[in-house]
Amino acid sequence: MSDVVKIGIAGLGTIGSGVIKSLLRNKSELEKKFKFQFEILGISASSKDKERSFDVDQFTWFDKPIDLAKDSNIDLVIELIGGDSGVAYDLAFESIKNKKGFITANKALISSHGKELSKLSESSNSFIGYEAAVAGGIPVIKTLRSGVILDKIDGVYGILNGTSNFILSRMSEANKSFEDSLLEAQNLGYAEADPSFDINGLDAAHKLSIINSLCFAEFPSLESISIKGIENILTLDHKYAQEFGYNIKLIASSSKKGGNLRKEVAPTLVKIESSLGTVSNVSNVVCITTEYNGTLVLEGEGAGEGPTSSSVLSDVVDYSMNTRNYLFNKKSSDLSDPIINKDLIERCYYLRVFLADQKGAMSNLTAILGKNGISIDQVIQRGGVHLKDEKNFTPVIMLTHPVDSDSIDSAFSELIKTDLISMDPIFLPVLKDNL
Amino acid sequence: MSDVVKIGIAGLGTIGSGVIKSLLRNKSELEKKFKFQFEILGISASSKDKERSFDVDQFTWFDKPIDLAKDSNIDLVIELIGGDSGVAYDLAFESIKNKKGFITANKALISSHGKELSKLSESSNSFIGYEAAVAGGIPVIKTLRSGVILDKIDGVYGILNGTSNFILSRMSEANKSFEDSLLEAQNLGYAEADPSFDINGLDAAHKLSIINSLCFAEFPSLESISIKGIENILTLDHKYAQEFGYNIKLIASSSKKGGNLRKEVAPTLVKIESSLGTVSNVSNVVCITTEYNGTLVLEGEGAGEGPTSSSVLSDVVDYSMNTRNYLFNKKSSDLSDPIINKDLIERCYYLRVFLADQKGAMSNLTAILGKNGISIDQVIQRGGVHLKDEKNFTPVIMLTHPVDSDSIDSAFSELIKTDLISMDPIFLPVLKDNL
Repeated sequence: MSDVVKIGIAGLGTIGSGVIKSLLRNKSELEKKFKFQFEILGISASSKDKERSFDVDQFTWFDKPIDLAKDSNIDLVIELIGGDSGVAYDLAFESIKNKKGFITANKALISSHGKELSKLSESSNSFIGYEAAVAGGIPVIKTLRSGVILDKIDGVYGILNGTSNFILSRMSEANKSFEDSLLEAQNLGYAEADPSFDINGLDAAHKLSIINSLCFAEFPSLESISIKGIENILTLDHKYAQEFGYNIKLIASSSKKGGNLRKEVAPTLVKIESSLGTVSNVSNVVCITTEYNGTLVLEGEGAGEGPTSSSVLSDVVDYSMNTRNYLFNKKSSDLSDPIINKDLIERCYYLRVFLADQKGAMSNLTAILGKNGISIDQVIQRGGVHLKDEKNFTPVIMLTHPVDSDSIDSAFSELIKTDLISMDPIFLPVLKDNL
Repeated sequence: MSDVVKIGIAGLGTIGSGVIKSLLRNKSELEKKFKFQFEILGISASSKDKERSFDVDQFTWFDKPIDLAKDSNIDLVIELIGGDSGVAYDLAFESIKNKKGFITANKALISSHGKELSKLSESSNSFIGYEAAVAGGIPVIKTLRSGVILDKIDGVYGILNGTSNFILSRMSEANKSFEDSLLEAQNLGYAEADPSFDINGLDAAHKLSIINSLCFAEFPSLESISIKGIENILTLDHKYAQEFGYNIKLIASSSKKGGNLRKEVAPTLVKIESSLGTVSNVSNVVCITTEYNGTLVLEGEGAGEGPTSSSVLSDVVDYSMNTRNYLFNKKSSDLSDPIINKDLIERCYYLRVFLADQKGAMSNLTAILGKNGISIDQVIQRGGVHLKDEKNFTPVIMLTHPVDSDSIDSAFSELIKTDLISMDPIFLPVLKDNL
């Protein structure tokens, strides 16, 4: 590392521009506090002429991002393009091959190619920082990569997608429909025009796969994670969940019990007054349960220019300190392949069906549940409550006793074949620990 | 630093023994993950013969802790004795003078002598770690010393004393008296035989002074912090606060607004469903509000063998990585002297008085408040509620509109001179931000 670190930055959208402004704003702080001096030697993006929040002409322009990785004067490449293939992929591998430091906010890249990146960074002895890839401004990667938690981790539970959390919060707090809440999120710039990945759980699953690798030395495929989105949650589900003392949150979790490692993204009932239950709007939270250090909770803003730039800067500082730990805490050769675990752990579930207004319906419903080993702890059924288009069906809400997910799946399959109910039933797990 | 770091450990109580077990348990993890090898070269405590949870004879015994600092073979001294003078003080200064690394869990030492330690560590270029001195297993010091937050911090708010938080939680959740809750804390080992420092706010103030130094480059004296304890909070205060939507927590805070820096430890009303409001038992929490990274919340266990050992180990890792930042983020010569600020920021207050059952009492009370510039937002007075020994007085609870603390102080002085009330009134600030 030269005395003055030469930085190249690729991708100059909101985040890229934010990182440049943040680097310039904190130049003297970095020098005073960490004795770190830098120079932005080159910048690159798809178009030079777009309007941007900083003066592009003060830096050398590179037409192709990959040339930043090839420039022998550049020590550190910061990638803010996104995507797990194409330009971002090439830039990452070329930078690391050329023994440059590499910092990214790209969760898809790390999630899809982490194992290769890990291996390559070991052979080049290169620094890779990806704090900004997970949970915006929350230092969760640093916490998991540093020495904060050396002892055994039992599980990690988080709200990792701000958009879906915003939607669930609005449904729950403002009594809005899913559609109206999504529209509000889009109007506020919290959701993309195509919000599929936020809503169907994939974005959270990408982030979970990274956290899981750090905690459990297993680099999971998306197929090894059970992923459910929030599309089927109704406003009334929030109301009933609250009657039971819970909020519904999209929880991404990896938890280890015995030899069993369950990785899941699912709308989940969490205690209203818990760390996970009180997180609203676009905030993120990560709870790490450990053997010796209790439960550590980290909460903050999950996205946006400020938080993401802060995380990128914290990686720049780590680079400057010559931090030299493995990408996922273990040597790449010690990372296991994806493990698809049978989910044997029993949990309570929230069940909502729209039950036919006919004699014996409740008895038939409970019979099907009972046959599948599901026993009921609490029930709410109120006369006169119907869905707009389903006048002959009434919502019935149940909390089950602990049961495994196979039983739930088989009850689900059986229920949807009957004419007892309208719409698919929903089964949401209840988080046991008061996280 | 030699290849195998030679460690000396002084103080072998619960924490010291925990650190030794934790070091041994994580030996291979430290080597694999951080390429850090160590050897415990010497241990020392006041008595060799006490029963301990590890085998003392496997290590070389030093009769005097100070000799660890003088031994030229030792690279790193870990001090777990406690106290801001005497043995711990001598050990710290001798270690650093001799250019050894120094790690401590001693908040009193850092709070009282931080500025000298800071100066000395600069001239010796020595590492000092004190993660375990504040908020147990929560990595708050690391977060504030590392690059996580470079941009401006607006304020820091925390629950930093687990014992008092346990007592307040039991009063609020189990409807117990202060005395019974304290007894329960003592029976569970959460409170010392003499719990004064936990209850009167001094312990929290020590920790606040450390956090304040890191955030605002001002090294405060205890005199420059407004400190109030929890001794005068009654169980009924929790009930009334909850009716208004708040819990009462002992909040330590430093907040900057314009040129004004308010440092305070005080029982404070915080929103029930906020990050500060939901922390119960002996947990700690720190909320850091920033200009660019929103609010970062860190929550976890505030004390105990496991969390404290984890924090000490995280300092060992930082030492091994040759982390070289300033003790309080700035050069010691750039740390300002204690600033005693006039508290000009207006806040709402919770007021509880026992008002005489006599004609015109309420009118006289509000007149005194009004005269002092205090205007009332909400009042609760219920007939027939009295304290056991004060049959002729009824509790009256008020929430005020925003007002400065001078007005509160002068209303207090005036009220206690009248025969309108029994017992001193209590005024508790209401935290405005939903932290």
